[in-house]
Amino acid sequence: MAAPTIKLNNGKNMPLVGFGLWKVNNDQVYNAIKTGYRLFDGACDYGNEVEAGQGVKRAIDEGLVKREDLFIVSKLWNSFHDKDKVMPICKKQLGDWGLDYFDLYIIHFPIALKYVDPSVRYPPGFFYEGDKIVLSKASLEETYHAMEECYEQGLIKSLGISNYVGSLVLDVERYAKHLPQTLQIEHHPYLVQQDLTDLCKSRGIAVTAYSSFGPSSFLELDMKRAHDTPLLLEHPTIKSIADKHSKTPAQVLLRWSTQRGIAVIPKSNNQDRLAQNLDVCSFDLAKDEVEAISGLDKDLRFNSPTNYGIDIPIFA
Amino acid sequence: MAAPTIKLNNGKNMPLVGFGLWKVNNDQVYNAIKTGYRLFDGACDYGNEVEAGQGVKRAIDEGLVKREDLFIVSKLWNSFHDKDKVMPICKKQLGDWGLDYFDLYIIHFPIALKYVDPSVRYPPGFFYEGDKIVLSKASLEETYHAMEECYEQGLIKSLGISNYVGSLVLDVERYAKHLPQTLQIEHHPYLVQQDLTDLCKSRGIAVTAYSSFGPSSFLELDMKRAHDTPLLLEHPTIKSIADKHSKTPAQVLLRWSTQRGIAVIPKSNNQDRLAQNLDVCSFDLAKDEVEAISGLDKDLRFNSPTNYGIDIPIFA
Repeated sequence: MAAPTIKLNNGKNMPLVGFGLWKVNNDQVYNAIKTGYRLFDGACDYGNEVEAGQGVKRAIDEGLVKREDLFIVSKLWNSFHDKDKVMPICKKQLGDWGLDYFDLYIIHFPIALKYVDPSVRYPPGFFYEGDKIVLSKASLEETYHAMEECYEQGLIKSLGISNYVGSLVLDVERYAKHLPQTLQIEHHPYLVQQDLTDLCKSRGIAVTAYSSFGPSSFLELDMKRAHDTPLLLEHPTIKSIADKHSKTPAQVLLRWSTQRGIAVIPKSNNQDRLAQNLDVCSFDLAKDEVEAISGLDKDLRFNSPTNYGIDIPIFA
Repeated sequence: MAAPTIKLNNGKNMPLVGFGLWKVNNDQVYNAIKTGYRLFDGACDYGNEVEAGQGVKRAIDEGLVKREDLFIVSKLWNSFHDKDKVMPICKKQLGDWGLDYFDLYIIHFPIALKYVDPSVRYPPGFFYEGDKIVLSKASLEETYHAMEECYEQGLIKSLGISNYVGSLVLDVERYAKHLPQTLQIEHHPYLVQQDLTDLCKSRGIAVTAYSSFGPSSFLELDMKRAHDTPLLLEHPTIKSIADKHSKTPAQVLLRWSTQRGIAVIPKSNNQDRLAQNLDVCSFDLAKDEVEAISGLDKDLRFNSPTNYGIDIPIFA
């Protein structure tokens, strides 16, 4: 069983359902491949690209898949936005994975931090020293052009942005030599962002949702606003729709995205849920069900730096 | 009577209360100067820079003020974002006003439209032909650098941006050779934007509020969401605070901004209100009154292109 794909604006195909690699190890990657996952959404910041690469290698070595069957995603961390740092770190990350190319490489946040040498600290995180945030002078245009060089050299097959608001997407359009293929954003029924997804649709930029289950992902981070919000996985609207389709609430939440053409990248440590999450294109929600779920929108964002006490209000 | 000033990050002083020039003619400018106004907030798009300049000239000729007593603001329209168009249009606008320099010149919107020659149509507005929106490829960084050239040549004494969201402000900071002095945004108790104003404060960028009275300014545009929203000028919270201070609701709304260091640019065709609007630093709101007014926030924006049917979601 494999997820359907969507065609990106450069002609490449991207699976509509993938596996998010935050807090994941190599056994899980290998197992996810075995379960049928083909897209893996990694990042420098997750600190596990070496392990993830080992999982991929094992699956390839055992003949489960070939490299070209996979869609490997990684992300440029904030500390590497300076134009002369982008390609070197991309190559380092490829080396960590044991790959020649990424299928998609994404600017993780529209935030440029002062460079940290990987030999000093890797991944560098948000703080330069102690609790100090030190910004870099690299503009998003500068960083994007450096990403384009990676694209032109074939190190990355598609270009992505993440956590960009509408006016940044409009600006990328103006300075891009190669349009981004995807935008990755927090997206769930409490944060629908219809205008932003419509904008991307109208511009041929595919949208990938992260944190599809809303507050659940943020409970373990002890985030107050996550604890204060009714869980989507237990929300009566979601549960009743799930019951009607004999699916789980998680499947309904993922289907709500994929049915609207928005890719998802859930993860799970549980084998049943792993399989269920992949199997979310085998049923369809009715139009009024989609609307009822979208109607839960409250413009409620969890993954903003300011919610972690980091004073960089990229969503203000 | 003159309004107090705030010191901008380049050392210049800007009046905290000014006169907005949208739909204003030269008699009104002359009269406003007579009433004590010193800051005039104009724009290419308002289509009245020649008339406004005549009002200024008359006041200077009659010895009411000297040029250096005034703080004249103008704005770069969307159709002139290409780097080779910025300085020529700035000079044309100066010519229209009959001035050697603007005290502040502002990027009106983070939107770049295809160039329209002023001899063909001026001001060009949003539409290129009929109802067609045609974008230009000028990035905001490109446009800003062209603005900086006007600044370095002394054509403009301060640099401003308008309708920028937080992530655009953060990006300007990265590519600017000269930081912007001001950000002009829609700001009223229904749209407080605390994070954005805090960001500007922390970066030394002064904030100017437009549409300080909220929905009232948009009724004449027949905007549905303005008609559907209780008027701030008639809101019980505002009225009761106004009564307590023996001031008008308008004065309370303006004081709510200026007391928090946010400049305002109301306009009025009525002489009494003109004087009242200028006299908004002669009383202070109590802390709990400021908080009660801020508590009306509902993140409700009127002046978005999408509210006019223009599909450029800069606030998405």
